[in-house]
Amino acid sequence: MYGLIGKMKAVPGQRDALATILLQDVGPMPGCLSYVVAHDPADADAIWITEVWTDQESHKASLTLPAVQQAIAKARPLIAGFDSHVETVPVGGHGLAKAG
Amino acid sequence: MYGLIGKMKAVPGQRDALATILLQDVGPMPGCLSYVVAHDPADADAIWITEVWTDQESHKASLTLPAVQQAIAKARPLIAGFDSHVETVPVGGHGLAKAG
Repeated sequence: MYGLIGKMKAVPGQRDALATILLQDVGPMPGCLSYVVAHDPADADAIWITEVWTDQESHKASLTLPAVQQAIAKARPLIAGFDSHVETVPVGGHGLAKAG
Repeated sequence: MYGLIGKMKAVPGQRDALATILLQDVGPMPGCLSYVVAHDPADADAIWITEVWTDQESHKASLTLPAVQQAIAKARPLIAGFDSHVETVPVGGHGLAKAG
């Protein structure tokens, strides 16, 4: 499995709008086992995204999906920057969906 | 929802053993929507744990479950320390299990 843990900063006041795009505009992503969008209660502009994929190739391929590209284009003006980005190797757990 | 993103360091050489305890000894946890244990490919002793719960109370209650307390007792000697611990407010996503 391939995992990502990232923190992005929204343009001030745009966190809810950004989270909505990240959740609603993305659509089904083959190989995606988990994709969670979260607010940071300690930082009013910050969003955490945690992802689990069957493999890194599935994640890369997702970035070429039309719905994902459209979501990225729509989200970009609302993103102020990226604070952290960690790649992980998930070894197991609970709540991992079947690969779509 | 209530989320946690944490990084812990295993005693050198004990990461696999620690991850196995965190995955296999924990058992069902009511209110747990997602629980993922991952290796950090950039740090041979590091483990990331990402969790999503229905609410903070469910997470607190899980720490009193006998299986979880036994897993903690078994894991403790293998843990060298905690690097980071972030609380989040998940707002949605994919791969969230039904609350057990």
